[in-house]
Amino acid sequence: MLGRTYDNEVCSAARALEIVGERWSLLILRNAAFAGMTRFTEFQNALDIAPNILAARLAHFVESGLMTTSGESGGHQTYQLTKKGLDFKPVIIALTEWGDRWAAPDGVPIVYEHEGCGGRVKQELCCKECAARVRAERVAAQKTAVMARLQQARSGRPARKR
Amino acid sequence: MLGRTYDNEVCSAARALEIVGERWSLLILRNAAFAGMTRFTEFQNALDIAPNILAARLAHFVESGLMTTSGESGGHQTYQLTKKGLDFKPVIIALTEWGDRWAAPDGVPIVYEHEGCGGRVKQELCCKECAARVRAERVAAQKTAVMARLQQARSGRPARKR
Repeated sequence: MLGRTYDNEVCSAARALEIVGERWSLLILRNAAFAGMTRFTEFQNALDIAPNILAARLAHFVESGLMTTSGESGGHQTYQLTKKGLDFKPVIIALTEWGDRWAAPDGVPIVYEHEGCGGRVKQELCCKECAARVRAERVAAQKTAVMARLQQARSGRPARKR
Repeated sequence: MLGRTYDNEVCSAARALEIVGERWSLLILRNAAFAGMTRFTEFQNALDIAPNILAARLAHFVESGLMTTSGESGGHQTYQLTKKGLDFKPVIIALTEWGDRWAAPDGVPIVYEHEGCGGRVKQELCCKECAARVRAERVAAQKTAVMARLQQARSGRPARKR
């Protein structure tokens, strides 16, 4: 188990980063989710990652419930994403879209397609109230009562506003 | 400038992670984008992060064009997100939504609201062809000609399929 870097954070994004914030983690998930990789050697060949790092990441994913492992512990062992692991696809797509906009001077190396339809898939922010597509600059974060309660419990004093 | 961890990767998600993949990076951006923080001491107090790490992250953001800095180099210097930096909001929202679903046993600490309307904002994957909302399991990655060309240029040999 990795150390909890963001232990003082009452935040779902921080909790997600505890699980996938280490170097290579999201790229391993990307290759499992979008390139169908399941074997240690596939990840290693594709990513050119040190074997001890890769082994640690995969073990962490299994421990965290993002992957299950089956087969022998040798070369034929496979790693399969669980629903929890596959659910990182939107995060990977969001990261890709940022990189496409800001860090792909030669053009876009990968597109995301709607299986069957073949159309391009894009991430959008949608309002559940007015059904509008929302620009990111119109999105604000609001603390909930859960946040106030958790902050108070952690600090032993009233939650401060920040 | 940080080392390029994913230099062999022809992938926009990897390029994005070169810029925001270090520990604390996305949480600093979160606090700038959603909590309106601009000052070194605000980030430090909120995140309980070592000053040298925070200074390095902020300098990297300025160098990478995610933030601009103004004012004195002392306590009154401010860091403002650029359009490029604010554009990470969808990534932070996607991470938050994963954490809300899988790592928030006590309930959701923050909700994202549509400013003005007040409705909840959710990330969705939308098909540009058929206009459907697409479930993540129906999204596939397809390499483009750009990918093939870049892989070939980097390897000096025909791009391999993986």
